[in-house]
Amino acid sequence: MKPYVIGLDLGGTNSVFGIVDSRGEIKATTAIKTQGYDKVEDYVDACVEALQVIIDQVGGIEKIKAMGIGAPNGNFYNGTIEFAPNLAWAHNGVVPLAKLFSERLNDIPVGLTNDANAAAIGEMIYGVARGMKNFIVITLGTGVGSGIVVNGQLLYGSDGFAGELGHVTMVREGGRTCGCGRTGCLEAYCSATGVARTARELLATTQEPSLLREMDPEKITSLDVSIAAGKGDRLAKEIYEFTGHMLGEACADFAAFSSPEAFIFFGGMTKAGNLIMDPIKRSYDEHVLKVFKGKAKFLVSGLDGASAAVLGASAIGWEL
Amino acid sequence: MKPYVIGLDLGGTNSVFGIVDSRGEIKATTAIKTQGYDKVEDYVDACVEALQVIIDQVGGIEKIKAMGIGAPNGNFYNGTIEFAPNLAWAHNGVVPLAKLFSERLNDIPVGLTNDANAAAIGEMIYGVARGMKNFIVITLGTGVGSGIVVNGQLLYGSDGFAGELGHVTMVREGGRTCGCGRTGCLEAYCSATGVARTARELLATTQEPSLLREMDPEKITSLDVSIAAGKGDRLAKEIYEFTGHMLGEACADFAAFSSPEAFIFFGGMTKAGNLIMDPIKRSYDEHVLKVFKGKAKFLVSGLDGASAAVLGASAIGWEL
Repeated sequence: MKPYVIGLDLGGTNSVFGIVDSRGEIKATTAIKTQGYDKVEDYVDACVEALQVIIDQVGGIEKIKAMGIGAPNGNFYNGTIEFAPNLAWAHNGVVPLAKLFSERLNDIPVGLTNDANAAAIGEMIYGVARGMKNFIVITLGTGVGSGIVVNGQLLYGSDGFAGELGHVTMVREGGRTCGCGRTGCLEAYCSATGVARTARELLATTQEPSLLREMDPEKITSLDVSIAAGKGDRLAKEIYEFTGHMLGEACADFAAFSSPEAFIFFGGMTKAGNLIMDPIKRSYDEHVLKVFKGKAKFLVSGLDGASAAVLGASAIGWEL
Repeated sequence: MKPYVIGLDLGGTNSVFGIVDSRGEIKATTAIKTQGYDKVEDYVDACVEALQVIIDQVGGIEKIKAMGIGAPNGNFYNGTIEFAPNLAWAHNGVVPLAKLFSERLNDIPVGLTNDANAAAIGEMIYGVARGMKNFIVITLGTGVGSGIVVNGQLLYGSDGFAGELGHVTMVREGGRTCGCGRTGCLEAYCSATGVARTARELLATTQEPSLLREMDPEKITSLDVSIAAGKGDRLAKEIYEFTGHMLGEACADFAAFSSPEAFIFFGGMTKAGNLIMDPIKRSYDEHVLKVFKGKAKFLVSGLDGASAAVLGASAIGWEL
């Protein structure tokens, strides 16, 4: 029995690798910059060069069972990255990244999916969803992503792209424009950028005093809102109230779909703790269909923040 | 190998039984009134008495593999009917109907689920979803129901009640009240009663001439709208346009959830054909996330209308 899997958290800026054991302990780690490669082959060459060092540290490729990759626009069925706007070597086509890594790593199985799905598998194998068969992970980062587990299996749908809950429509008239080209998406309100936008809107439309007024509105980030709220700033709290309220409404609709045992929130914004979780729960209770009331748990990711994405990606390896 | 299953379509008014073979052919059928029994035991007695006749017709209980029941508020996990408002013997509690039937029928396995889930299994086994692993059945009747199939399995969720897509919120401010006690639900607009309500609203708020103006507004049904539309009535067509538009918007959100291969519409309202299906498809294309565009099929149920519900219920029997 081979004791390790490789996890790759492939982000727009950094590509972080970890070699992980079955208990979720990271035995070795390394990273390269994602940018600077025009051709995917050059990117994979650079990855394998960095990887080789940590593979040797754990005793060679014979110790590695598989590799899992969490990547934007990752398609699990095909092992491809498809039209990823932020990746120079994949923004304009379909790249068979899993196959390319497998060929360079002794033909070990390589699985690939998007980051939110990787987070969901990570929670199921190492995190707070251990033992759960039906749950939804919602990632609150630059965007809003989701990984849906149903009957103990990740929901990939007919084409590998299921679980895009950041793009359900929450505001049908006059909604904010979203990065996807549509309007009113959950992501346009509840991502980190959405929160910053809510801050700017509230600063412009109310007179309420706030620490945030001391900043250039265009430079406000969700972290600034979090810091201000932590200091008791009322406007900042209102921003979380608004964000949580919409997330709770969305979760009420998601319950009507898959009736999960738990909603698990993942990503930077969860650091705001009860400031965001309390309004989510309150709004969910207010909006959910009676038959589901009081059933679902609302949890924050159980994966260690810094390495959560690598752990999630590595978890795909155990499932192959 | 036992060649038959029993299907029971348990409705608020009638309980219709069929004995069905593996190709979906109904070999014998009977029915009793659902009402008139205060205790569930009396209802089951009356059912078994009627059933015995058709069981004998096909050669006795030894020929029967299992029984499937499609019923309001049916819980597959527990084989129970829970708090069904329209059933005198189950409106106020949890009734173990599957167990009661099994005990009276030589201990054959008995499965039970709600009518929309039964329809979905029926489509998968006998209908247009044969061979599909990911699809959503949407039932357009007095209410709007749904049965969601994911990875070839019906989605029951953590508690057996997943797939209540009639109760996703489509109108968040000033939405119509819904039978569920909330407002703005899909069902409040796109069920048969929702369509009649749209008719009354349009008649009251526009001056457009219409055949529907010859009727008492309070008595208009979705069938009247369908007949008028069939005669080219412009207002009636507008009603379908509005209904289909909202269904298409809802399906676009459902695609973001489970990315199904097909949406299959079931129930009386589908008789309107392209009048309802065309606006659904148009609105879906307009609203769905780019990655899903042009992928999903929009189909009308392939089950014979009169016996579709019995076939759906019977199909549960093959899955046990």
